[in-house]
Amino acid sequence: MQSLKNNLLLRALRREKVERPPVWMMRQAGRYLPDYMKLRAKYDFFTRVQTPELATEITLQPVDQIGVDAAIIFSDILVIPQAMGLEVLMEEGKGPLLPKVIRTQKDVDALETDNVEETLNYVTKALALTKQELNGRVPLIGFAGAPWTILCYMVEGKGSKTWEKAKQFCFTQPELAHQLLQRITDTTINYLKAQSKAGADVLQVFDSWSGCLSPRDFKIVAQPYLIQIADALKDIAPVILFPKGSWYSLKELSDSSASGLGLDWCISPQIAREMTGNKITLQGNFDPAKLLLPVEEIKKEVTEMINAFGVQGYIANLGHGITPNIPVENAKAFVEAVKNYSK
Amino acid sequence: MQSLKNNLLLRALRREKVERPPVWMMRQAGRYLPDYMKLRAKYDFFTRVQTPELATEITLQPVDQIGVDAAIIFSDILVIPQAMGLEVLMEEGKGPLLPKVIRTQKDVDALETDNVEETLNYVTKALALTKQELNGRVPLIGFAGAPWTILCYMVEGKGSKTWEKAKQFCFTQPELAHQLLQRITDTTINYLKAQSKAGADVLQVFDSWSGCLSPRDFKIVAQPYLIQIADALKDIAPVILFPKGSWYSLKELSDSSASGLGLDWCISPQIAREMTGNKITLQGNFDPAKLLLPVEEIKKEVTEMINAFGVQGYIANLGHGITPNIPVENAKAFVEAVKNYSK
Repeated sequence: MQSLKNNLLLRALRREKVERPPVWMMRQAGRYLPDYMKLRAKYDFFTRVQTPELATEITLQPVDQIGVDAAIIFSDILVIPQAMGLEVLMEEGKGPLLPKVIRTQKDVDALETDNVEETLNYVTKALALTKQELNGRVPLIGFAGAPWTILCYMVEGKGSKTWEKAKQFCFTQPELAHQLLQRITDTTINYLKAQSKAGADVLQVFDSWSGCLSPRDFKIVAQPYLIQIADALKDIAPVILFPKGSWYSLKELSDSSASGLGLDWCISPQIAREMTGNKITLQGNFDPAKLLLPVEEIKKEVTEMINAFGVQGYIANLGHGITPNIPVENAKAFVEAVKNYSK
Repeated sequence: MQSLKNNLLLRALRREKVERPPVWMMRQAGRYLPDYMKLRAKYDFFTRVQTPELATEITLQPVDQIGVDAAIIFSDILVIPQAMGLEVLMEEGKGPLLPKVIRTQKDVDALETDNVEETLNYVTKALALTKQELNGRVPLIGFAGAPWTILCYMVEGKGSKTWEKAKQFCFTQPELAHQLLQRITDTTINYLKAQSKAGADVLQVFDSWSGCLSPRDFKIVAQPYLIQIADALKDIAPVILFPKGSWYSLKELSDSSASGLGLDWCISPQIAREMTGNKITLQGNFDPAKLLLPVEEIKKEVTEMINAFGVQGYIANLGHGITPNIPVENAKAFVEAVKNYSK
């Protein structure tokens, strides 16, 4: 590892002793930041994602303005379906739309799985440029969507409350579903390896929709692929798995090759520690809505959260992405509260 | 209790020995049923809810056509905000809309809390008429929304993924929030008592949005009011509490006055039994999306579910409402599988 001035995140993931927990926020480069909104007004979503200079500028904003302990590359989990040959439309303020969805063997066979590194070279370029601009200030996080979550979008074609088309696909065509999940997994592993090579110090895998699965189905369509990804990357970079809502998987995933597990706010720190037997670093789990509290109360709640998780083997974060309605000073108060933590 | 020909549900809730678990489905009187769709095409939502003859006809459809072991009165949880003086608009296919929302002390003070029995007499009339039409075939379930879930709609004014306005209201004006929750609770208790008096044999309380709360916040804004409702009704009718998504509350709620706890599909039967120490009847928790499986596989999955919960102290149900896209024969297969259960 190149000399990082602030390597708290890496030490926390290696379970080395830290003086305080590192802190970053999911969606920290996002709509609550006025400078991001200026770029958003000028460039459409994929221009921002696919122009390394813009992605870098956006990635650095929260490092410069909020003082987080890690940068996370500005990108989107849907670059993978795109790189695999599916069109992805992104209308501002609305969710994503994939006009052509996956339903049959022919659809799966038609997906691209080679050359992802080449197709997504705008991401690796953005990582390299960000790494250079960061100049060792803080670590850089790369990321991808988990195979189940990517399948959700590929089959459903858009966001859903129930993901029932995605489930129907998996329940009624299990073999085809596994083929698709495996192809996404292979592509994702290559993509994450390329991200590491380009400069990502840590890799996070977002299983944003795993919480809609029963524990049994999670073990069939989500868990094996998360574990494959963690295994494939274990000698390359620390991996954080974030199966949002899937509290029931924590015990088994704490035995995986991952270095960290993300938590949403719907589990108490105590129970999460019990389930993971203090074997793995935990990351989370502040309710983003609590950032609407007055600054003094944010500090109090952050202190209680760290007290509950403990300082070691812990990364302070939200339990979900920061929402556009959060005042910048409240986001800063969250980060400052972690930095100034004393029990 | 008047002589019920099929009292399986009541016996399961009293933890008396049953030969097989009773079965019903949330939203069993709903859009997957062609006869319901015919009435839906002719009468708007509130006409269907507020006309006792229509509500009765709809309530009876799944008893006659699907063979469930209980009827649940056709109504809506938003009749309570309506009865408390808030306008509720319901556009078919869209969610509900409350043009005037609650934000201030003045808003809370202006709410009606008396005479709910009178304002909602269309519900009690529908219950009485349904009870008469059922003629003892199966028990009749009445219901209401839980105070937290009702607050969500009153403050937010419409559905939400994050309910952040409702949370902000509770987090930043906790005293006012408790006033509002208490007024909803008092009104709901009176409403449920009236439902019992009108013929409801069992009362279910739906906390549809409790799963967006952290365990700590659930204990502040949801749990105390659920417990109050269960306590107030314990000598009147068996109560089933369904705090959807709030698996972390099962242990404490199993010590409440409730007779049953509803479960969504995101918890394994084994863990749910462990958390509730076999002290309370459990209801659920088939993933509604699994009703898209072929009939033979539905049967297999139902058998496994009952094996896991055990026959005693258990009510077979879905983990959430049945969705409009389920074929009628699949809904029937679910019910038949429970009726024909043998280990």
